[in-house]
Amino acid sequence: MIYLDHNATTPIAPEVLAAMMPYLTEEWGNPSSTYKFGAKLKGAIEAARGQVAELIGAQASEIIFTSCATESNNAAIHAALKANPAKRHIITSAVEHSSVLNFCRTLEYGGFRVTYLPVDRDGLIKLADLENALTDDTAVVSLMWANNETGVLFPVKEIAEMCRARGVLFHCDAVQAAGKIPINLREAPVDYLSITGHKLGAPKGVGALYVRRKTPFTPLIVGGHQERNQRGGTENVALIVGLGKACGLARQKLPEYDKKVRPLRDALEDGILSSIPNTELNGHKTQRLSNTSNLTFHGIESEALLILLDQEGICASSGAACLADSDEPSYVVQAMKSESAASRQMIRFSLGWENTNVEVKAAMNAITRAAKMLRG
Amino acid sequence: MIYLDHNATTPIAPEVLAAMMPYLTEEWGNPSSTYKFGAKLKGAIEAARGQVAELIGAQASEIIFTSCATESNNAAIHAALKANPAKRHIITSAVEHSSVLNFCRTLEYGGFRVTYLPVDRDGLIKLADLENALTDDTAVVSLMWANNETGVLFPVKEIAEMCRARGVLFHCDAVQAAGKIPINLREAPVDYLSITGHKLGAPKGVGALYVRRKTPFTPLIVGGHQERNQRGGTENVALIVGLGKACGLARQKLPEYDKKVRPLRDALEDGILSSIPNTELNGHKTQRLSNTSNLTFHGIESEALLILLDQEGICASSGAACLADSDEPSYVVQAMKSESAASRQMIRFSLGWENTNVEVKAAMNAITRAAKMLRG
Repeated sequence: MIYLDHNATTPIAPEVLAAMMPYLTEEWGNPSSTYKFGAKLKGAIEAARGQVAELIGAQASEIIFTSCATESNNAAIHAALKANPAKRHIITSAVEHSSVLNFCRTLEYGGFRVTYLPVDRDGLIKLADLENALTDDTAVVSLMWANNETGVLFPVKEIAEMCRARGVLFHCDAVQAAGKIPINLREAPVDYLSITGHKLGAPKGVGALYVRRKTPFTPLIVGGHQERNQRGGTENVALIVGLGKACGLARQKLPEYDKKVRPLRDALEDGILSSIPNTELNGHKTQRLSNTSNLTFHGIESEALLILLDQEGICASSGAACLADSDEPSYVVQAMKSESAASRQMIRFSLGWENTNVEVKAAMNAITRAAKMLRG
Repeated sequence: MIYLDHNATTPIAPEVLAAMMPYLTEEWGNPSSTYKFGAKLKGAIEAARGQVAELIGAQASEIIFTSCATESNNAAIHAALKANPAKRHIITSAVEHSSVLNFCRTLEYGGFRVTYLPVDRDGLIKLADLENALTDDTAVVSLMWANNETGVLFPVKEIAEMCRARGVLFHCDAVQAAGKIPINLREAPVDYLSITGHKLGAPKGVGALYVRRKTPFTPLIVGGHQERNQRGGTENVALIVGLGKACGLARQKLPEYDKKVRPLRDALEDGILSSIPNTELNGHKTQRLSNTSNLTFHGIESEALLILLDQEGICASSGAACLADSDEPSYVVQAMKSESAASRQMIRFSLGWENTNVEVKAAMNAITRAAKMLRG
């Protein structure tokens, strides 16, 4: 298997699994218990909270553990709206993840007004558009750090500063950015920021939400006293420990990420663009994650190409995994390039730590053969 | 260690961990992916869905996986309210879990009216109270199957039929009942029912919500197409498989549960009540789970007794783990017995599969010594 779909999910790092195993075996207590067997688990959770905080330049007390990025994204927007009950306007972009877009759509049914900022052909928003969209009625801006389908990076620091200057809360979905590029929340006045475990070597089923100190927060999931009353539900200790460990590893390895992954991605991307006719990059050439390559193969339906690649053991996707089992074209590519064909004829390749030159060469050959066959 | 706090959490069964391990190691794909490596995981999720359904007499298509019981409980009430946007009244009881009570309180702030049905000294509601509380404005009734602190069983079938007759949606928190008593939703017209993994041998961090076929449902966590658009977020495959396996085991072993656990619980309870003066049972003598014993030790603060027991390796609690790290008295016992002392002088013992006669005898001795010391 050649796995080129790391933006969908990543392998669980052996160190992460090793860190989790005690909490799936002998350390199965309830951390809210008063006796030592349970209560000592609070230490493991707090250690993980510190590891998550360190990856993004935050303080441990600013981290709330959640079940996934979707919950984190929902919870942030929910909290911002609760903090501003009189305000009825939300700003996001046309290319956000479904957990932001579909949540915003449900809020529209509930009477909120939502501005979906457009993107240009490179997948970037115009800061002037954001500035023009901000009104006194705006409760929250939700924009992602790195796009899951194209890897395109939004100028988060500038966005955060613009929101701050207007007194509008800003949420950033950093799910694809965390572990791939440096995130330092001491330098960018983001109010809420979402990350998730399974995009950086932890299991599926755990995420985190950063809430800046003094930023208002009302829980989405309401229950017991867990997470300092900010997220009810018995703590998912094992996966929280896994997320912490994965963040610790990601922080340690981050300086190497670009050096390791970018040459592989570039070799694949340049190879395809130069040797397979009628192919085209979707997304800004440089303002982009170093692992992601979103390419249109004109005249070839994504699904047909993916099936042939799967037969050769190559895993790639035609967009977000969260929507992959639907039959819809990529709304991200559609928002960038209105020609509808591009959004049905694109493939996302997203690389990761364990990919090799040999894999990239094999993938190139397979993609070339498949494209020829489908066009022949 | 003698673990007598199974209503807080349970050990992960070795068979459950074994079932999960492939999904924490080689099978780490994203089930929403189109390629085989990811897509084949759908089968594992669907098998687990079937196992959960079978435990409660439901169909697989009626099960939604969630991150925990708190989410399930919130989601059910949220869905029922969304289904009846004109109705502003909720009925619950004074002894529900915090994930129902605190969620209802947030709804009160939002303008809903909530009736908290009282309980008698045995911890039971009066069906006449429920009948009187039901109005044309009632959107949902949320009542638990078995109380987490006392084990007291509500007459769920009668409640469900009463709600059905009045056309009111009924949610049941069955977190403590599942795996301990038979649940057959073919025989009780419950609309929504919550269960969670870590109360029946699966890990913390996974739950399920039953939604009866044709009962309206609007998701609480909104994102991608997962769970047939009913719960966004990449599926927590490993823990879902674990929950399925735990439900399968629970179903298989259920006929033995009462035979195994009740004699141990009764030996402990009868021993304490007969040999330690000024002790008192909280909760109905018979209409109760066979594993739970909630006892007041008059004149002894719960926390003092628990500390002494902890020193002897005995794990028990003074109420719900979800609130155990707070300093509040038990609102459940307070609702049953208004004398405030009882709610600060009670201990919950909750037994499980792996407890033994030897443990019960050792616990009896330790409890007797500790009570004498604290009263001396």
